[in-house]
Amino acid sequence: MESSLVGSATAASLCATAAATRRSAGSRGGARFLSCSCSSRDDPAARGWPVSTSSVGRRLRSVAPGRSLGGSSPQLAGVNGWNGNGSDRRWMALGDSFVLEAREDEYGGMLVDADRLPPDTAAFARSLALSLAYWKSARKKGVWLKLPLDRSEYVPLAVKEGFKYHHAEESYVMLTYWIPDEPCMLPANASHQVGVGGFVINDQMEVLVVQEKYTASTLLGAWKLPTGFILASEEIYTGAVREVKEETGIDTEFVELISFRHAHNVAFQKSDLFFICMLRPLSDGIMVDDVEIQAAKWMPLAEFVEQPFIQEDDMFRKITDIFVQRLHRRYCGLAASRVTSRFDGGTSTLYFNVADQPGDVGCDAA
Amino acid sequence: MESSLVGSATAASLCATAAATRRSAGSRGGARFLSCSCSSRDDPAARGWPVSTSSVGRRLRSVAPGRSLGGSSPQLAGVNGWNGNGSDRRWMALGDSFVLEAREDEYGGMLVDADRLPPDTAAFARSLALSLAYWKSARKKGVWLKLPLDRSEYVPLAVKEGFKYHHAEESYVMLTYWIPDEPCMLPANASHQVGVGGFVINDQMEVLVVQEKYTASTLLGAWKLPTGFILASEEIYTGAVREVKEETGIDTEFVELISFRHAHNVAFQKSDLFFICMLRPLSDGIMVDDVEIQAAKWMPLAEFVEQPFIQEDDMFRKITDIFVQRLHRRYCGLAASRVTSRFDGGTSTLYFNVADQPGDVGCDAA
Repeated sequence: MESSLVGSATAASLCATAAATRRSAGSRGGARFLSCSCSSRDDPAARGWPVSTSSVGRRLRSVAPGRSLGGSSPQLAGVNGWNGNGSDRRWMALGDSFVLEAREDEYGGMLVDADRLPPDTAAFARSLALSLAYWKSARKKGVWLKLPLDRSEYVPLAVKEGFKYHHAEESYVMLTYWIPDEPCMLPANASHQVGVGGFVINDQMEVLVVQEKYTASTLLGAWKLPTGFILASEEIYTGAVREVKEETGIDTEFVELISFRHAHNVAFQKSDLFFICMLRPLSDGIMVDDVEIQAAKWMPLAEFVEQPFIQEDDMFRKITDIFVQRLHRRYCGLAASRVTSRFDGGTSTLYFNVADQPGDVGCDAA
Repeated sequence: MESSLVGSATAASLCATAAATRRSAGSRGGARFLSCSCSSRDDPAARGWPVSTSSVGRRLRSVAPGRSLGGSSPQLAGVNGWNGNGSDRRWMALGDSFVLEAREDEYGGMLVDADRLPPDTAAFARSLALSLAYWKSARKKGVWLKLPLDRSEYVPLAVKEGFKYHHAEESYVMLTYWIPDEPCMLPANASHQVGVGGFVINDQMEVLVVQEKYTASTLLGAWKLPTGFILASEEIYTGAVREVKEETGIDTEFVELISFRHAHNVAFQKSDLFFICMLRPLSDGIMVDDVEIQAAKWMPLAEFVEQPFIQEDDMFRKITDIFVQRLHRRYCGLAASRVTSRFDGGTSTLYFNVADQPGDVGCDAA
């Protein structure tokens, strides 16, 4: 799917990388330094560094014994069996160094198997240099090196070889190395954080509002909508309902997406997408989350709209105008619809105008 | 702004962190390990590790000489001047170790100054242990440690002290340490990548389509919309126009946002937001980008819609139905409007339904 909707070589490569990453996560033993077709997963002679870090790697064949690798220079280009054409089914070794186990994606990318790294820094340094030399000679393109937190001592060794950081999560850092003498085509790191806000209004035309414990001085005393960040892999409409529940104790259901805002350089120079959802209240007893929230209440719409932080602010005034138009049924937001696609083999959520679904959500702008 | 729209302590902390990060980027000399009010930026006695890594740090005062630090245990709690109440205007030192220079944000977070790290691994290890002990005794909360690529040898030392990865960009990795014995409130890393697609249709009801060089096998031969990822800090509507221009050479202008898709676990377990924009062509001479694109052409709408990869796919069929409804003016997408807000001191883009702007874009669903 990714490679169909979000095209371009970058996205295609990213798609393949992601697929390979998922494969890698699901399989420990089958990784090979050439494409999967090169050796049987059960061929004992095709096993490199054992998963156990206590044992030493087996030497199956020594190539050009005594040859110095000289860091990562491609001195091995042209050596028999090192042409990277996929015909070589033997493990490559030099002295007691092995080419790192890695999968190859459809775009010449090599994904090093993080579960089968060499057992110590010396072995890792030797194998990394050998691997880069081999991959260069085999005309590979990008190298993906995922180093778990407990292998952090390998990070400076990879940087010394010319790797750069790509992204990191709590438990690992991903480094990359672009081999060709042409612009790097590796996909970028995640660029956005996603926030949600809940516009909850009851039959008495009262808006559910909160005062936050930690807030900008310009917002002291302001009664605002419940807001927060969506969780990993969480839907926008689910996140809005969850945040409202967490901050105020009110149960709600998603009605429609009213609008969204795109801002840049918000945190760590990343961008921010903030989605405002209209939610229908299913309960009215407020229970404040005293970790984040100072107070919460139902506030008459007119009183909410008249607050200085809204009236004196271009953006907040515009957003509030949209709320009012929506309540007067002169505005339609977006519905969320689950769709399946064979291109990612899964389901995703499509957001589109509900004007073609009159009555469904009380919007009759159409 | 962030702390007003996207509320919650997390967002507030993130906002402050981002602000502090921006301040840090803009200023080298003023950083202090207590809040900015603690010492004059020009007080020479308040300078810790010099920017130059060749010189050694100055010792201004030795606290509890000979006292063993014992890793990061808070043995310094209660020592005169170490109560973190902001009253201590002296630099803290033990032997030749200094507390790392850091800024404090409004939420008890300490942001270590990446420009003024100790000159070598031994000094960094000692200062990091001393700093953690001090910050714990001073009841700080989160510690932000940004290590540039050329300081990668410090990464394992930080991990040994209990730091975890937070995020990374090509030139640095950010590590964090959460001190309190309560759930971590540090803001999360960026969670999403953002893609765009351009639906360009001319007066002859022909759609601008491309065939990609690198694509999933299921899409071989498919004629699809020009797509790609937006660049850092790029607007969605700008990215769509740019991608169409890059892939096909066609100049366009943004009409409206038709719909968007939200998918998860796309790459590196991150999520993906894909925005489909309707664009008005301003030229018709196609010039193909031969790096990513195999071919591009104007294709009759009916022929585009009838393609198997669309008709046989739930999601693509739905998206195409929306295109057709839009062309028959039975659908309204979202307009992009630049808005300013005093809460982030800048402008951002708000996307909302254009049904309240009849005629503006030829949509009269309202």
